[in-house]
Amino acid sequence: MSCMAEPLVECVPNFSEGRRPEVIAAIRDAVAAVEGVRVLDTHADAAHNRFVLTYVVPESSAVASGLAAARAAVQHIDLRTHQGVHPRIGALDVFPFVPLGDLPMARCVALAGALGQVIAAELGIPVYLYEEAARRPDRANLENIRKGGFEALRDVLPGAPERQPDLGPAAVHPTAGAVAVGARRPLIAFNVYLGSPDVDAAKAIARIVRHSSGGLRYVKALGLEIPGTGSTQVSMNLTNYRASSIVTVMDMIRAEAARRGVPVLRSEVVGLMPLDAVLDAARAFLQLREFSPDQVLERRLWQG
Amino acid sequence: MSCMAEPLVECVPNFSEGRRPEVIAAIRDAVAAVEGVRVLDTHADAAHNRFVLTYVVPESSAVASGLAAARAAVQHIDLRTHQGVHPRIGALDVFPFVPLGDLPMARCVALAGALGQVIAAELGIPVYLYEEAARRPDRANLENIRKGGFEALRDVLPGAPERQPDLGPAAVHPTAGAVAVGARRPLIAFNVYLGSPDVDAAKAIARIVRHSSGGLRYVKALGLEIPGTGSTQVSMNLTNYRASSIVTVMDMIRAEAARRGVPVLRSEVVGLMPLDAVLDAARAFLQLREFSPDQVLERRLWQG
Repeated sequence: MSCMAEPLVECVPNFSEGRRPEVIAAIRDAVAAVEGVRVLDTHADAAHNRFVLTYVVPESSAVASGLAAARAAVQHIDLRTHQGVHPRIGALDVFPFVPLGDLPMARCVALAGALGQVIAAELGIPVYLYEEAARRPDRANLENIRKGGFEALRDVLPGAPERQPDLGPAAVHPTAGAVAVGARRPLIAFNVYLGSPDVDAAKAIARIVRHSSGGLRYVKALGLEIPGTGSTQVSMNLTNYRASSIVTVMDMIRAEAARRGVPVLRSEVVGLMPLDAVLDAARAFLQLREFSPDQVLERRLWQG
Repeated sequence: MSCMAEPLVECVPNFSEGRRPEVIAAIRDAVAAVEGVRVLDTHADAAHNRFVLTYVVPESSAVASGLAAARAAVQHIDLRTHQGVHPRIGALDVFPFVPLGDLPMARCVALAGALGQVIAAELGIPVYLYEEAARRPDRANLENIRKGGFEALRDVLPGAPERQPDLGPAAVHPTAGAVAVGARRPLIAFNVYLGSPDVDAAKAIARIVRHSSGGLRYVKALGLEIPGTGSTQVSMNLTNYRASSIVTVMDMIRAEAARRGVPVLRSEVVGLMPLDAVLDAARAFLQLREFSPDQVLERRLWQG
């Protein structure tokens, strides 16, 4: 059979346009026209004047899809007249590659470097490599790259050594600015509901599981009231579910809730969850020592 | 995608060889060489001395692939010297056709009859038609066909009218025995390992969960020794995982094992598991009240 398994990459480019539907559609269509691209979501925000495109693409077409995204942004967006409350440095502002399935992060770092090179060479746009793809430690954090936005970068770039791009010219593109290209883990938005009106218990549990106050390295968490329900919520982002597993998170919350006499009512995943995280939870429940994603019947039929 | 143009059948032949990798590879390769075959999984078990091949094939090549499987088994396996803890009557022991997509069960029943005819005619092996393909009510249940294994069948077959095959000679093939060919719904082969040498506990738990002795309607189970490991196994087939859930099975086994002071060491899924069953287990662990298959990131791709 002709269908061959190929590693897949999720791409979540952010564009500096959230108000003109025809521009959003044109950019989306330009990306969708690249072979193998499947668009999962388009989310526009008028106040931010920004839209986020979510799509998946085979690794072999990932760089081509990114160049199509950058080219369409240059064609349709002029940062000299762009206004919005969200910080941005480029028409195509941020382009992260996210590995799916077994694809190693190193391959997405390589894709980020390759896309950065073609954007710099073909379009004359300065490129900053961020997060897992960062080549300088201070650029792991996107906020450092985006400081002051397009306008500040335009003014300071020629004369500021610490702001020089990783790839491309030492001056912003006149209308398209600059772009941050990177690689990061998929994120899971995971909320656990507690059967008690006591928000202090939810806040205490959030403090125990989250990285910032001594908990799991790749967990962000808040304890929230859910008004009128008599329940509270531990609201989380799992930013690296392989290193800080949803299974560990759930075990910790169950233990801490039990210690406080608070029942765990239920949980929810907001949006999407990678299959690997689903499998982690299934393996935990069934005590499966070995269970490969390849053993999911439908995955073999459709991807293989 | 072009690979879904023709109706597909899943085939899950079980062979009486689980120890010699070169034999397993030779049989797998013989099947894989048939046009249109896509091998999904090979799972060998040394204690059972048995391997399970899982593949999909277009309906038009399904009978040819089954004959290739039977021919390779005859060539490489000699039941006179085969030993293993799992009951078996043949070198190729069981060959089920499983309909995928919208393919009606009746078409898989027809495939079973056609494969039985060619195996009987070409290889001189007696064929029993089982489950949905059974032509006698008592043969809907595979255990009735396999009673006493190869050795008993060899001795009683010539003189026992009730054991006569549906197709082929009234005597086992001297080295390859007999074969059960059938058609069935997708099943999950699920084994739970218990940390005790006491096989009576495993047998007692198997009796409690399985349908035939009062347990869950769509569960078959055996308690087996795993020689030399100090552990035992509850070896199961879940023949309708929607009605008799793997979550319920696991809960029952944990409760029964705990009552007997026997630890549950781990579990395994032999071959493939439908995504819906994986999600049932993940929902149970995470207490997800609502989690749709559409929320599995990669699944959007499998669906074309």
